[in-house]
Amino acid sequence: MQDRKIMLSEREMPLSWYNILPDLPTPLSPPLHPATHQPIGPEALQPIFPEALIEQEVSSQSTISIPEEVLDVYRLWRPTPLVRALGLEKKLNTPAKIFYKNEGVSPPGSHKPNTAVAQAYYNRQAGVKRLATETGAGQWGSALAFACNHFGLECTVYMVKVSYQQKPYRKSMMHVWGAEVIPSPSPKTKAGQDILAKDPDSLGSLGIAISEAIEDAVQHADTKYALGSVLNHVLLHQTIIGLETQQQFKKIGLQPDILVGCCGGGSNFAGLALPYVREKINGRNLRIIAVEPTACPSLTRGEFRYDFGDTAHLTPLLKMFTLGHDFVPPGIHAGGLRYHGASPIVSNLLHNGIIEAVGCKQTAVFESALLFARTEGIIPAPESAHAIHCVIEEAEKCREAGEEKVIVFSLSGHGHFDLASYDSFLANQLQDYEYPEEKIKEALSELPVID
Amino acid sequence: MQDRKIMLSEREMPLSWYNILPDLPTPLSPPLHPATHQPIGPEALQPIFPEALIEQEVSSQSTISIPEEVLDVYRLWRPTPLVRALGLEKKLNTPAKIFYKNEGVSPPGSHKPNTAVAQAYYNRQAGVKRLATETGAGQWGSALAFACNHFGLECTVYMVKVSYQQKPYRKSMMHVWGAEVIPSPSPKTKAGQDILAKDPDSLGSLGIAISEAIEDAVQHADTKYALGSVLNHVLLHQTIIGLETQQQFKKIGLQPDILVGCCGGGSNFAGLALPYVREKINGRNLRIIAVEPTACPSLTRGEFRYDFGDTAHLTPLLKMFTLGHDFVPPGIHAGGLRYHGASPIVSNLLHNGIIEAVGCKQTAVFESALLFARTEGIIPAPESAHAIHCVIEEAEKCREAGEEKVIVFSLSGHGHFDLASYDSFLANQLQDYEYPEEKIKEALSELPVID
Repeated sequence: MQDRKIMLSEREMPLSWYNILPDLPTPLSPPLHPATHQPIGPEALQPIFPEALIEQEVSSQSTISIPEEVLDVYRLWRPTPLVRALGLEKKLNTPAKIFYKNEGVSPPGSHKPNTAVAQAYYNRQAGVKRLATETGAGQWGSALAFACNHFGLECTVYMVKVSYQQKPYRKSMMHVWGAEVIPSPSPKTKAGQDILAKDPDSLGSLGIAISEAIEDAVQHADTKYALGSVLNHVLLHQTIIGLETQQQFKKIGLQPDILVGCCGGGSNFAGLALPYVREKINGRNLRIIAVEPTACPSLTRGEFRYDFGDTAHLTPLLKMFTLGHDFVPPGIHAGGLRYHGASPIVSNLLHNGIIEAVGCKQTAVFESALLFARTEGIIPAPESAHAIHCVIEEAEKCREAGEEKVIVFSLSGHGHFDLASYDSFLANQLQDYEYPEEKIKEALSELPVID
Repeated sequence: MQDRKIMLSEREMPLSWYNILPDLPTPLSPPLHPATHQPIGPEALQPIFPEALIEQEVSSQSTISIPEEVLDVYRLWRPTPLVRALGLEKKLNTPAKIFYKNEGVSPPGSHKPNTAVAQAYYNRQAGVKRLATETGAGQWGSALAFACNHFGLECTVYMVKVSYQQKPYRKSMMHVWGAEVIPSPSPKTKAGQDILAKDPDSLGSLGIAISEAIEDAVQHADTKYALGSVLNHVLLHQTIIGLETQQQFKKIGLQPDILVGCCGGGSNFAGLALPYVREKINGRNLRIIAVEPTACPSLTRGEFRYDFGDTAHLTPLLKMFTLGHDFVPPGIHAGGLRYHGASPIVSNLLHNGIIEAVGCKQTAVFESALLFARTEGIIPAPESAHAIHCVIEEAEKCREAGEEKVIVFSLSGHGHFDLASYDSFLANQLQDYEYPEEKIKEALSELPVID
């Protein structure tokens, strides 16, 4: 029998993260001040992030050591298995070899604690007492609650109100780990008050919740802010996914030909991809594909330009693929992919032609999720299912062409808290969305013209 | 840094289960016919089980090979990690070394697929088309749905109505794996119709659901029944837990002094314990503790005598510790521990003084669950939390006595579908139950007097 799982021992776990900044084909455009539109230095981030994370955000070092205490927490679930999807391959009757890196085995159930643990650690080292953050679907909030609990920090999570109501168990999970969870928009912040004044029944959005969390951090001296995606230091921490995957493939003497990840802000995609981007820049031939919903098509239909990260214009302007910060995506079930923009690093790589991007419709994505659950056992998060859908399409092409390609994707998390969306799918109640070009143009027309 | 996880490779996975029947200090009393009260032979089970499982139920072989196809499915998640609970030890400031065998890593989230996969396999080999079963909290139904899906069998799950309503996501999970889920009591069976005629609003019980599933199997030639606990062949399949644990301890040169498992029907407890019972019978000194809720105290306050497994008297009479088959335990949150009886094998070992049993109150159990979630990260199922509570008490005794004992317990499953009960606990809404002696006497007084 062939091994299904390629495991690493705890002693084989990478001891450093990989920082892609010095290897990018073109440097990132600088963040701009939200009001003056002038480039800002790292010191502008001091009200919301501790020094160590700001240094990582702009570091020119290729590798950054993972602190011993962070490694120690990682070892609760890492290294994660690289799994050969033998059942799926058989069902598809494909000569392709399909592998997935299972990040769903962490206690919060996704890849998010890879950065949450690091961020909580550096904040505690800096004497911070409390972290404030936002969460949409709840994966990030759960991860930060878990991490803060471990390092003895308080944690306040502004949870998009519609998710707060629809996903009560994500909220319960955060409570188990001792976090305070506040439905957003809330009356606790000016940003929340402003929204509620206009619309008392607002169900919230990620952009609003970010504004609330940043305001909370800025207003309290003992409190900092934590973001679960988009920024350079977040992607840095996630590279442990790809670094482990490289070692695992080395063990079995294979190399991936196609690498696939779902992409919202970009942290899961980049976590797997960035160490392979380095290989590609150094000459290895492989395709790297970011998969997003057609309902929130920042990479496939957005523009590469400066935009805010939030609705209240509290964040710096970042150069990224964006649909405009006022773009409100429909209520699709992959809540983690409903962000209007994409990480500057991922955007840079797409702009430079190093990675590709594709969009998928949600009913097709759920069909693939079901096929995966029925062949591999694991019920995937709807976000992860976007990657699965793309992988199935690529594996079918391999069947048609008779090609034995090696395909790997990141299973960003399990779907134990998303079963209501599977119910909707099985009851034929899911809708697909594809935006008319004018609507995207309209959202983009509001943006400051800077370039 | 010390390793947290002791792993086995897929190639180190045991290739046989351990059958304790030939090693028991006294033989099991024979099952009796439900009507005549005369001993029945294995052939009486043919309407509901395939030949291979009936053979295992009465086998005198010490080891039984695990079929290749079953091993292949096990390898989706097995071998499971043996984890050193360093965070919990530190918090308790105990010299004890605490380990847990994490069975929550399976796709359905518990130890139940260890037997579900085997049962589905043997049924398919026998040409069976469909399996019928019951489920209370949903762990067993999910596991059988998962297993049937893998081997191409249809699966019908009679789910206790109160759980069907309170745990919609367990039901969704079964749907994802293609099972039919029917709230019990249902109008589909005579057993269900009889209950509904008396009480149209009945919320059901495990005993009623068992009657319905057995009736369904008996009435349909292409259908067999599957049980998730209690029986000898079920415990046999679960011994892979303890066999792996033995190998894992061998790797680090340690031996457990105290072994703990939660006990409802007994399959999780026995899965870890039976290979160690063999060691104990052969002279090794160790304590083996079964933990149950005080709200359903079959081992600690029941009687060792013949009883039915279901309410409709369809099952054979089995000699076991029981509270009487009409005993209706209160609606505690550890649904998997709400069965009126205990496995004949576990009962035999308790009667012979080889194992011990203790009862715990549910609020204390949830306090321990929360401590575990906050020190080890994993949110345990309420069932597993009974074992955790007992382990914490033993570890505290070690601290007081300054003893470096090695304690191991089975983490039967994760609590992702039990977060509503954590909410209740955090809101101080959980109640404790302890039965007055008369009430237990009353339930037992209805039983046939046979011994």
